[in-house]
Amino acid sequence: MDEFSLIKRYFDVQPSSANVVLGIGDDTAILDQQTGQQLLVTTDTLVAGVHFPVDSSPESIGYKALSVNLSDIAAMGGRPAWYTLALTLPEADDCWLRGFSAALHALARRYDISLIGGDTTRGPLAISITMLGTVPTGEAVTRSGAEVGDSVFVTDTMGDAALALYCMQNEIDLDPAVMTQLRTSLDRPVARVEEGLCLRDYASAMIDISDGLAADLGHVLASSGVAAELEASRLPLSQAVRHAAAEAQMNDDTLLQLVTTGGDDYELCAVVPQTGVPGLQSTWPPALAPLTQIGTIRQGTGMILRSASGSHIELAANGYRHFT
Amino acid sequence: MDEFSLIKRYFDVQPSSANVVLGIGDDTAILDQQTGQQLLVTTDTLVAGVHFPVDSSPESIGYKALSVNLSDIAAMGGRPAWYTLALTLPEADDCWLRGFSAALHALARRYDISLIGGDTTRGPLAISITMLGTVPTGEAVTRSGAEVGDSVFVTDTMGDAALALYCMQNEIDLDPAVMTQLRTSLDRPVARVEEGLCLRDYASAMIDISDGLAADLGHVLASSGVAAELEASRLPLSQAVRHAAAEAQMNDDTLLQLVTTGGDDYELCAVVPQTGVPGLQSTWPPALAPLTQIGTIRQGTGMILRSASGSHIELAANGYRHFT
Repeated sequence: MDEFSLIKRYFDVQPSSANVVLGIGDDTAILDQQTGQQLLVTTDTLVAGVHFPVDSSPESIGYKALSVNLSDIAAMGGRPAWYTLALTLPEADDCWLRGFSAALHALARRYDISLIGGDTTRGPLAISITMLGTVPTGEAVTRSGAEVGDSVFVTDTMGDAALALYCMQNEIDLDPAVMTQLRTSLDRPVARVEEGLCLRDYASAMIDISDGLAADLGHVLASSGVAAELEASRLPLSQAVRHAAAEAQMNDDTLLQLVTTGGDDYELCAVVPQTGVPGLQSTWPPALAPLTQIGTIRQGTGMILRSASGSHIELAANGYRHFT
Repeated sequence: MDEFSLIKRYFDVQPSSANVVLGIGDDTAILDQQTGQQLLVTTDTLVAGVHFPVDSSPESIGYKALSVNLSDIAAMGGRPAWYTLALTLPEADDCWLRGFSAALHALARRYDISLIGGDTTRGPLAISITMLGTVPTGEAVTRSGAEVGDSVFVTDTMGDAALALYCMQNEIDLDPAVMTQLRTSLDRPVARVEEGLCLRDYASAMIDISDGLAADLGHVLASSGVAAELEASRLPLSQAVRHAAAEAQMNDDTLLQLVTTGGDDYELCAVVPQTGVPGLQSTWPPALAPLTQIGTIRQGTGMILRSASGSHIELAANGYRHFT
């Protein structure tokens, strides 16, 4: 199967969006621009053995490759619209391509986005996706708007992917139902697009926590020139995480470290001015992932995590360190 | 050196374009759209050992990675504007990164385009670039507009890259000046952006011939539902190609085959209606790559190459075959 028949068979689907004037099959795609909108552009690559285990299913690879890019658009409060796919494959394996492309197309339908072009090449397995989205002019939520007194929120729960990796690496036997739930978070992260669109009207700064809360909230704090104080007891943990931590006989400190520094959570961390908090909370659609307030923006630099016992831990962007 | 310092040191240059609201350093870039313009999007990947020899200099890799994408925008008659870079590297080698990024930035200045984002990951060397450009609404030149009687043009000369590869693979000793010239075509192809902008006003169809004239003109013919008749004697060959062919004791047939089916020529092939030809030729800026008329669009399917001796050769999209 050559490149052209491969593209035709697996990737040349009809674009869903009316703004796609020309999709796959020419030198470039042609897109109509929308008045009153700015364009958002992001690129993320997944490499086999680096970003996903080499034995991952093609469905989970396709799902994750698209989700990590959707998550970047979500973190700006944008609406995803179009993507290109650069797929490097050791061989044209029909079974692999069927699973991979089915996952992409299912997710594309779910978010109403269109595959508009790309490139397939022979080489070590890697997937690089460029996602384009739109946002009303001037309304994108960057990392740099956090101000002292603002509240820090995260969507859904944290640490599920980190716990999955920890249990896999330490060969901890978990209840299969729990492990399935954690693996789903790791392999099939859900991009919080609808949540980002709702948060856009309220947030002063936003980021997705794909590199872990400490690192990513750290970017917001550094860009905004502020500090944060977080409450350990408020960090939203799933039942699966609590169960896995107990099974692994993990102490609270290790658990907190994993949850705050572990990557692959594709939740949003949004900073919201006090005046907006009641409005945000009262209008939050119940169908979306829940929103939890985990702390407050302070003057200074860095992050402090207050534990239930009253001790406080300094969270560094690249790790986790007790005050000496 | 971690990902963030690597990006800061080598890639975080000030965007040149006023339309870049936010460049590198947030979840996505933010771009202002231009009224009356459509957006062009293309993605191309280069993999070490597949698209360039593993011993290629970092400068030539950077140069080529950007040029192949510029060439796709050129082939639509578009103006390149912004690009993202997905760079997968086995290790953070300062010397390599310095050469690679210098080539990118030099070429970006030359074409007034801005690096607006991307991703750096660890893995086997590969470069995937997504290029965005603009074109006045409705004026992009696709592959599907060629009509019977139109003339077929190519820019500059053909086959230089193919002859370079041939001589390298067959270990033919060439005059170093000739080899340097051929290698430059292979390693540092020049995207015909200005040429594409001039051709836009005249061409009914256009493509770049990066996969070879036979394959790429073949796409135009298939998309347009027409055939082409080309004159072998009109194919523009450089002195270096003629010299290398003589040195390699290549017969005319082998030379024609290489020139028409060899890839890595980043010239434009444009199809122009008869009524436009005088205007195109009389207004062609002398500073641009010369334009040569090589044939005519005919009814039917496929491509015929007429040789000087009067024989004709059927050019297949995937090869080269004499009539039986």
